[in-house]
Amino acid sequence: MLNRVRSAVAHLVSSGGAPPPRPKSPDLPNAPSPQTAAPPEAPRSPPATAGSGSAAPAKTVEARASFSRPTFLQLSPGGLRRADDHAGRAVQSPPDTGRRLPWSTGYAEVINAGKSRHNEDQACCEVVYVEGRRSVSGAPREPSQGQSCWSSQKEVTHESLVVGAIENAFQFMDEQMARERRGHQVEGGCCALVVVYLLGKVYVANAGDSRAIIVRNGEIIPMSREFTPETERQRLQLLGFLKPELLGGEFTHLEFPRRIQPKELGQRMLYRDQNMTGWAYKKIELEDLRFPLVCGEGKKARVMATIGVTRGLGDHNLKVCSSTLPIKPFLSCFPEVRVYDLTQYEHCPDDVLVLGTDGLWDVTSDCEVAATVDRVLSAYEPNDPSRYTALAQALVLGARGTPRDRGWRLPNNKLGSGDDISVFVIPLGGPGSYS
Amino acid sequence: MLNRVRSAVAHLVSSGGAPPPRPKSPDLPNAPSPQTAAPPEAPRSPPATAGSGSAAPAKTVEARASFSRPTFLQLSPGGLRRADDHAGRAVQSPPDTGRRLPWSTGYAEVINAGKSRHNEDQACCEVVYVEGRRSVSGAPREPSQGQSCWSSQKEVTHESLVVGAIENAFQFMDEQMARERRGHQVEGGCCALVVVYLLGKVYVANAGDSRAIIVRNGEIIPMSREFTPETERQRLQLLGFLKPELLGGEFTHLEFPRRIQPKELGQRMLYRDQNMTGWAYKKIELEDLRFPLVCGEGKKARVMATIGVTRGLGDHNLKVCSSTLPIKPFLSCFPEVRVYDLTQYEHCPDDVLVLGTDGLWDVTSDCEVAATVDRVLSAYEPNDPSRYTALAQALVLGARGTPRDRGWRLPNNKLGSGDDISVFVIPLGGPGSYS
Repeated sequence: MLNRVRSAVAHLVSSGGAPPPRPKSPDLPNAPSPQTAAPPEAPRSPPATAGSGSAAPAKTVEARASFSRPTFLQLSPGGLRRADDHAGRAVQSPPDTGRRLPWSTGYAEVINAGKSRHNEDQACCEVVYVEGRRSVSGAPREPSQGQSCWSSQKEVTHESLVVGAIENAFQFMDEQMARERRGHQVEGGCCALVVVYLLGKVYVANAGDSRAIIVRNGEIIPMSREFTPETERQRLQLLGFLKPELLGGEFTHLEFPRRIQPKELGQRMLYRDQNMTGWAYKKIELEDLRFPLVCGEGKKARVMATIGVTRGLGDHNLKVCSSTLPIKPFLSCFPEVRVYDLTQYEHCPDDVLVLGTDGLWDVTSDCEVAATVDRVLSAYEPNDPSRYTALAQALVLGARGTPRDRGWRLPNNKLGSGDDISVFVIPLGGPGSYS
Repeated sequence: MLNRVRSAVAHLVSSGGAPPPRPKSPDLPNAPSPQTAAPPEAPRSPPATAGSGSAAPAKTVEARASFSRPTFLQLSPGGLRRADDHAGRAVQSPPDTGRRLPWSTGYAEVINAGKSRHNEDQACCEVVYVEGRRSVSGAPREPSQGQSCWSSQKEVTHESLVVGAIENAFQFMDEQMARERRGHQVEGGCCALVVVYLLGKVYVANAGDSRAIIVRNGEIIPMSREFTPETERQRLQLLGFLKPELLGGEFTHLEFPRRIQPKELGQRMLYRDQNMTGWAYKKIELEDLRFPLVCGEGKKARVMATIGVTRGLGDHNLKVCSSTLPIKPFLSCFPEVRVYDLTQYEHCPDDVLVLGTDGLWDVTSDCEVAATVDRVLSAYEPNDPSRYTALAQALVLGARGTPRDRGWRLPNNKLGSGDDISVFVIPLGGPGSYS
């Protein structure tokens, strides 16, 4: 699956210029540019097929659906068994002796404490070469097309083409998973967090509950946001309001501060509609007694009492609990893409982009990550390329904790994460620069 | 109409506690609190009725629909004629001799240069006393109701109740205008910008193309944002995507960088869908040849080739140009409400909240307003209450310009605003404090 995301992004980015650069379309790169995609992902339900898309060599879906870990871990059959051991929960990283990840990127992962058979996080990190299509001496491809008809054309920046390519890649992936579900009865879905570096800019695309932050000179710069029933309340309510058939007469798109009792009919109650950020009062009517589309708070917030994450790929078959209503329209495959311009700041070797799956962020705050960045990196020479792997390992260990009192415990005796945990640490000004 | 906005806000804020404060609802104000609403508004089409809602003394719609200027201008019949003179365009302010606006708020306005018969901006500024409903010694009103059933109740802050009351006030106003349209054949619509001060916080609600900024120690703090086909593209596209019947088979919800020619069918073209912030390529299909839902750029951007503002009250009868399709669902009555906590900063007499209708902002940037704030206020003693009126007049004059070369010209010889212009200047730390 990761290959498909990566291929789709690479394909779209490379073919972004397929129709030739228009006279008013600025700065489409005609020269090839290095690019990387580094997505960790955390399937929510049984993992969908892992495999490559149409751009990759053909394998059967069945073969690709078998359990595997990232190839860059170079795990032997014995190593694979250890990585799959829920009791030991050994932290895995690429071997010191092997080839490093691009730009000395650090990576570490650990399996869950038994909540699912396999580690359902997946990751890849690669340099992709994009073949540009050179036009002769920069002239437009369609010389017969006069300038006049472009006069009212909107300006499309190179950056927005990359963002659009990534957005479309997510949608294509989602559609491909729908096709494979029909063809092979492969089910499930996943979140995805993708980083693309291209022409001096870092693009971070997130759909789900993974998170990316930049730690720069100790400062935290969020590069993604969480998509939950609470953060996406208004989008979900609007969908339920405009398409009431999606609620099947069982749910109300209105939000109330608590569940309404039938005996309260006719009384006044606080509510929020899809257009509101505040609360106001309304008289309780019969349909307000339906179950709320969005209910619960924090980690317990759910859409139609079913899902707690509102962006992700796949899950086309997912139904509302004890119902035949589909969840999918409320679960959107579109990512939010944030752009970080590397050229706007002089980065030092301690400036990093940290990507983590929910297993990390469930028990670790942004500030704790920044403190670990400072602590670990200051213990290594700035030009030691192993420092980013050490940092990724420290972050995974800090979230996993150690076995004590019949569980995995953090130093403060709170429970560590029993989930799969995967962390990338990408240096922004480290020994392998992006030039 | 302004009275109705104000009444609705005041009514809702005052009755916000009508069902008693719940045990977990924090800090509902039981004591009366002063509150002000200061909305300028700029009708886009012939003005809807000006008049009061159900909470105000009954007048006939016809009487209220007649032309008038804000009562605080205390205009004589002769003054009213001068205010209505498109050739002289005399700047109007409350008389120096009369009662000042609350907190020495400054106000100035000028009529348009002939684009419509009357000044279609309207304004009011008042202190409203909200009568709280005291509960006996703070006990909940429904003592029979146990605490247990509230255990999962969402926390509703006092601030979000005020925001919700304002949001609902806009919706109620919109519904009332729909009723009056049916009952009295009164048509039209307007934008609205409302400021409410309550319990140390300033609430700024905007639906339309007016704008509010705070100028604090020379720094500009935007207190509203513009609602145009461009800033609301994704909301409009989503509506067209989910409710294609609103597009009547005449429009496509997709955006393209330019109008597509029929001969381009089957070629690839950049597009944006409702979920996208970037651009990607698609093959042109037959329905892509339809007219785009959102088209044009900047001041010329339009929804269905008809409206350039996407939030406002009324206009329930407005149809798409040469069509029977209603515009209304794309034109939303809901404001965005921003909250500014006055207690978080020690304000000086030069810190002001500036409200202006589109006539001001069409030709004046935020920075130019900030420069005028500095220039005018520094010429007056800090405790001179007339300084805010002088500032409002300077802003209106600066946007109107002077008659020269057969038009109203600014000092840089560019055209001044030929539109109605209205400006409030509300001091945040001036002689009349909010305590």
